[in-house]
Amino acid sequence: MMKRILITGAAGQLGTILRETLKPHAEELRLSDITEIPDLGPNESFVACDIADGEAVKALVEGCDGIVHLGGISVEKSFDLIEAANLRGVYNLYEAARLHGMPRIIFASSNHTIGYYKQDERLRHTDPFKPDSLYGVSKIFGEAVASLYHDKFGQESALVRIGSCTPAPENWRMLSTWLSPRDFTSLIMAAFTVPRLGCTVVWGQSANAMGWWDNSHAAFLGWVPQDNSQDYAEEIRRSVPRPGRDEAVATYQGGVFTDEPIHQS
Amino acid sequence: MMKRILITGAAGQLGTILRETLKPHAEELRLSDITEIPDLGPNESFVACDIADGEAVKALVEGCDGIVHLGGISVEKSFDLIEAANLRGVYNLYEAARLHGMPRIIFASSNHTIGYYKQDERLRHTDPFKPDSLYGVSKIFGEAVASLYHDKFGQESALVRIGSCTPAPENWRMLSTWLSPRDFTSLIMAAFTVPRLGCTVVWGQSANAMGWWDNSHAAFLGWVPQDNSQDYAEEIRRSVPRPGRDEAVATYQGGVFTDEPIHQS
Amino acid sequence: MMKRILITGAAGQLGTILRETLKPHAEELRLSDITEIPDLGPNESFVACDIADGEAVKALVEGCDGIVHLGGISVEKSFDLIEAANLRGVYNLYEAARLHGMPRIIFASSNHTIGYYKQDERLRHTDPFKPDSLYGVSKIFGEAVASLYHDKFGQESALVRIGSCTPAPENWRMLSTWLSPRDFTSLIMAAFTVPRLGCTVVWGQSANAMGWWDNSHAAFLGWVPQDNSQDYAEEIRRSVPRPGRDEAVATYQGGVFTDEPIHQS
Amino acid sequence: MMKRILITGAAGQLGTILRETLKPHAEELRLSDITEIPDLGPNESFVACDIADGEAVKALVEGCDGIVHLGGISVEKSFDLIEAANLRGVYNLYEAARLHGMPRIIFASSNHTIGYYKQDERLRHTDPFKPDSLYGVSKIFGEAVASLYHDKFGQESALVRIGSCTPAPENWRMLSTWLSPRDFTSLIMAAFTVPRLGCTVVWGQSANAMGWWDNSHAAFLGWVPQDNSQDYAEEIRRSVPRPGRDEAVATYQGGVFTDEPIHQS
Amino acid sequence: MMKRILITGAAGQLGTILRETLKPHAEELRLSDITEIPDLGPNESFVACDIADGEAVKALVEGCDGIVHLGGISVEKSFDLIEAANLRGVYNLYEAARLHGMPRIIFASSNHTIGYYKQDERLRHTDPFKPDSLYGVSKIFGEAVASLYHDKFGQESALVRIGSCTPAPENWRMLSTWLSPRDFTSLIMAAFTVPRLGCTVVWGQSANAMGWWDNSHAAFLGWVPQDNSQDYAEEIRRSVPRPGRDEAVATYQGGVFTDEPIHQS
Amino acid sequence: MMKRILITGAAGQLGTILRETLKPHAEELRLSDITEIPDLGPNESFVACDIADGEAVKALVEGCDGIVHLGGISVEKSFDLIEAANLRGVYNLYEAARLHGMPRIIFASSNHTIGYYKQDERLRHTDPFKPDSLYGVSKIFGEAVASLYHDKFGQESALVRIGSCTPAPENWRMLSTWLSPRDFTSLIMAAFTVPRLGCTVVWGQSANAMGWWDNSHAAFLGWVPQDNSQDYAEEIRRSVPRPGRDEAVATYQGGVFTDEPIHQS
Repeated sequence: MMKRILITGAAGQLGTILRETLKPHAEELRLSDITEIPDLGPNESFVACDIADGEAVKALVEGCDGIVHLGGISVEKSFDLIEAANLRGVYNLYEAARLHGMPRIIFASSNHTIGYYKQDERLRHTDPFKPDSLYGVSKIFGEAVASLYHDKFGQESALVRIGSCTPAPENWRMLSTWLSPRDFTSLIMAAFTVPRLGCTVVWGQSANAMGWWDNSHAAFLGWVPQDNSQDYAEEIRRSVPRPGRDEAVATYQGGVFTDEPIHQS
Repeated sequence: MMKRILITGAAGQLGTILRETLKPHAEELRLSDITEIPDLGPNESFVACDIADGEAVKALVEGCDGIVHLGGISVEKSFDLIEAANLRGVYNLYEAARLHGMPRIIFASSNHTIGYYKQDERLRHTDPFKPDSLYGVSKIFGEAVASLYHDKFGQESALVRIGSCTPAPENWRMLSTWLSPRDFTSLIMAAFTVPRLGCTVVWGQSANAMGWWDNSHAAFLGWVPQDNSQDYAEEIRRSVPRPGRDEAVATYQGGVFTDEPIHQS
Repeated sequence: MMKRILITGAAGQLGTILRETLKPHAEELRLSDITEIPDLGPNESFVACDIADGEAVKALVEGCDGIVHLGGISVEKSFDLIEAANLRGVYNLYEAARLHGMPRIIFASSNHTIGYYKQDERLRHTDPFKPDSLYGVSKIFGEAVASLYHDKFGQESALVRIGSCTPAPENWRMLSTWLSPRDFTSLIMAAFTVPRLGCTVVWGQSANAMGWWDNSHAAFLGWVPQDNSQDYAEEIRRSVPRPGRDEAVATYQGGVFTDEPIHQS
Repeated sequence: MMKRILITGAAGQLGTILRETLKPHAEELRLSDITEIPDLGPNESFVACDIADGEAVKALVEGCDGIVHLGGISVEKSFDLIEAANLRGVYNLYEAARLHGMPRIIFASSNHTIGYYKQDERLRHTDPFKPDSLYGVSKIFGEAVASLYHDKFGQESALVRIGSCTPAPENWRMLSTWLSPRDFTSLIMAAFTVPRLGCTVVWGQSANAMGWWDNSHAAFLGWVPQDNSQDYAEEIRRSVPRPGRDEAVATYQGGVFTDEPIHQS
Repeated sequence: MMKRILITGAAGQLGTILRETLKPHAEELRLSDITEIPDLGPNESFVACDIADGEAVKALVEGCDGIVHLGGISVEKSFDLIEAANLRGVYNLYEAARLHGMPRIIFASSNHTIGYYKQDERLRHTDPFKPDSLYGVSKIFGEAVASLYHDKFGQESALVRIGSCTPAPENWRMLSTWLSPRDFTSLIMAAFTVPRLGCTVVWGQSANAMGWWDNSHAAFLGWVPQDNSQDYAEEIRRSVPRPGRDEAVATYQGGVFTDEPIHQS
Repeated sequence: MMKRILITGAAGQLGTILRETLKPHAEELRLSDITEIPDLGPNESFVACDIADGEAVKALVEGCDGIVHLGGISVEKSFDLIEAANLRGVYNLYEAARLHGMPRIIFASSNHTIGYYKQDERLRHTDPFKPDSLYGVSKIFGEAVASLYHDKFGQESALVRIGSCTPAPENWRMLSTWLSPRDFTSLIMAAFTVPRLGCTVVWGQSANAMGWWDNSHAAFLGWVPQDNSQDYAEEIRRSVPRPGRDEAVATYQGGVFTDEPIHQS
């Protein structure tokens, strides 16, 4: 049982899900976002915060014994937007944590750090990056900051390269990339619970039979995902048109992000 | 649902099994063999064809949207026989496919491409070949042709290195090599269904606890074998004499093929 | 069914367990220890033996068709004690086996051969040693003797790097290292049963979700562990205090052995 | 012979060296820096430019057929400074290149991307990053941008992880990390000359016998470094005090950067 | 000093070179080709032979204590031609050798077995094949036959994947692929001389600084190539137009073979 | 310049050589052996010592700032002899060093730790052991002790797996295994000189073109061997009969040690 878990980006889709699922695991959830969250539950508090504001982030982090960092941009955007939220924002977070007891950080990294690998390639967490977007580049930056703060100060992090976290897989590609909210929740709690977390990359995927990513190195966390996209495979193959073999969504692990242009601000 | 699947070598043991199991998955099964098949079912047609005859193979392939290539020699034979059926035959098939829309090809390759590895070695699909017979050499040739046609023309193939495809495992070695007909069928359909097949080697084995071969690279196909030789292990250990540790069948992955001489024509 | 299995170190904790579980698998269990075993069962015999005594070991081994070698020191001790029991003792055993028909040997090796690896490292059996104690060094010696006798004389061995063999996992670390007595027994019998054993390293762990060690290379043995420490995880997390992240027991695979000094005799 | 090579950061130490050595290889050197360069040679031109200014960088890049990007911060500094010059600056450069014909870019990356590896570890270019500073993190960012622009647009880059580029090695660590100006120059020209550069990581080191980094993957560039720190080893061992084995400069590949605190702006 | 070396394909370009360079190393050179060789030297004999004729090949091989197998097709041709000369021909040669004392065979394999790898990939001899032509496929077949005859009968071979064997490198690609006649000769003699040859793949390249292929595994042969394409690099860069980066000759290791269509007979 | 180097086993063949070559590098050479050394030079002292005697070894080590440990058995012998000198002896040495300031230890390990690898296999220092003799087993034990004392106490060692250290290579196998006295000496001094030695395995071979062992990981030591067996190759091939391909000396890296029986005491 944690005392106070901070969730950044708590007003977003993922944050909304995790407020529910993390509730039983902490005395208090401190929610933060740039957008107000109106409907606070009994063990929830809200702190408005722009993570590009370093002082504000320091205040935000103080007193927490665990951080789930969802804050920032989560799709392809212009460099200006990504710089503020995903570069400066991540730096601010790690600096704040360093100054306030180094609570463990669950960092929402992304499959878009490696999005240009082909779908018939099986990846290990040690394979070189191949980002498919400025967004993906910013997540590589975040992982690098986490690595630096671990080697230099001992800050512990789980770097969760999330595939697709939705209630259920929605298309052919998600049969490989799906991370169920239940499994994401148990991953977060495993990372908070294991005696020694270190700075560990974890592929954010459920126990999908069709997965592209090898999580065997992270078994020591004690995380055992329970869901499998296979349970949805027949339904999706029946109801969702099969993509052509040369479409980005069937070719690259990052899917349509590889088709995104550079966004101008 | 496929329109027309061509099965070459359809009169053989494997072909006879697959006619049954593939029936629900195609509007028509086009069966081909050098031997006549008398008992055609309602959605089956038969085309007599010697696969060493290039023109005949072109006619055979036209109009199919998927090919299961079982045709050719499947045990050790003289070079003359293997040359016609397994060298020239495979070339003919890929040329025919190239000319007729490049339907996906499921190529029945074999564990005899790597038969001289010891049974205590675990293999990845990228390990170098170690053929145990001219037959095994011919399957390496076939895989090489498939690779060429993929890189040069985009032809997609599944190169299934079949262990032992029989209704049930029959001896100690098959506890490692068994591929149930049910699993072979689901593998074929997975290869026909996946949006992008590429040119993918798959070890043709069920989910055997004792398996020697690592199929993790092929998870993206969405193939989940259901059978496990372990269910037959006790029975086989009781009823089949244990081979001596220095017999070929207990030493090499290719088993008794390593004991075969060169057959003279 | 074996004729006569020799268990050395049979009076110890592991030996006492295996007397029970191996009973159904052999016509006779020949038990040996430096300490007398009083309560022999109907198919048990006892031979008092100091394994540092080469002639006595030769007499002990004669007539056995399988050996489970638990004898020797199993914790950190002074060099003098380890030398006699774990260096000279292992040499004596392999010499005795060589002279008496080379019955297969199940050698109780240990995770302390690699105890200085961190707990967030996943190991393959081919990774270099990193012993955490003179005890661990002595087990490396034993594995080296087994390798020599295999390559030179054909002696077959299973080198079982035991994690923690207790009725149930007892602390946080054992969630990774636990080997249930049931699984150890089935491993022993698999090694006696497989047509060709060779000289095979096996990580002595149950099917623990949190395991650190990759046993995929040993699938050919047909050993399928049935137990999983995960079934005990909730209970342990509730009832056993979580170790600090910098304690040896949470840092190194060998746990507290890394904290042991050199024992003086 | 190149038409116009752009050197960013041309007023710095490295830039000053390369102005000399690159002179014979281009009709014109376009020099750029935030600091004025007074003493222009006959085939040199100067453009004052803050690389954090996107529009200015576009103008700067236009008309060049090769870029040597030395601009930005080259030691540990506060995040504010690094963000402007090394994050935004690199983005600006690649955007400008994309809009102006994609001239090849020689990107001055750094050993500080991997500075936390120990000096007794030999690295391949595919090993995961281990940055030792915010500066090192910013170079990882730059490599990620280069990778993105290559996979998405075909932009070619050489990512040169420079060790220590000085006229001669100056201390014990530089016996491993030294890159002579002559070798850096020939590397730049090899990258401009090879028919296909792709996006290639190169360790920026001379042919030092004591090197930590494996450049064998980059042999295709045709770069053959001529200098070897070994020629200076005796002199350095005699004249420079040997560092203690636990000092950062003797422990980590990044040397004293690992001792740097986070700089506050 | 060998007694009698057989050179097949002796009338070809390579054969003509090797007649000169091998002359000092054998009492007799037995030359064979489908084309007559008129100008025999004093220690040369000629045997006309179509290697597709099994009986003729047996007669040819008898009495030789070493074979340099250059015979067959050496560029892309129709399947019919390749089948006769490079499939059946190789089989005939190994059968003949098996029946006549198993003299060592130097088999002229080719870089076209791996021609579809990109030029920025460094290969080991164990990397999977990627043929670029039917010719390349036929060389894979040849290597597979050699492997079979080694594992089954003990026949020793050097499988020399020749790059480009010409008096001097002639274009940009050959800076990587060149094998000087002098180095090819010393390789042949090293393979005949080493006490144990086994069945060893060797990349047929001189000591080119720009080489793509790692020959370190074959150091045991004692072959030390003396030539380096680097000596010709400046001249070629000056006199031969640089290929465009997207031309096959600059993209793939197999160069223009990847552009070849399937030849019809 | 070292103050006092201890050479154990100084009366042996290797010790006699190193007394000469190490003389210029230390103010004093402390020589030790079980056999008296009569002809002491001006900067040499002699201490008679049986390394199986722990107290004597402690006295021996005191006051030394570097140890070259050649003492013990260096060929195959009975277990009794090896146990005293190579098991207990090594333990005594490391205990003594631990108590006396942990001077660096150059441990004469051996190729016989991996003697059962074939000669056509290229080894990395991380490959699993394959000892060919009890002697080889004892050297594995020594390396394990060194590893333990490094991880537990920080003791630094160079583990030199010596091939064949003789003035010149004497037979075909030594073309691969030769270590010239000059190169051994420079290796010892490099290990004493490098700021951080750690616990590093080094293959004890000169810069032999025919070497089997990859020393690239140890480049950081700054050791650059100067000799190459190639200079002796022609002479040896002319004057020493070529071994048959199935003789141990041509098959296994450990050569004739694989033919040694177990010696009885």
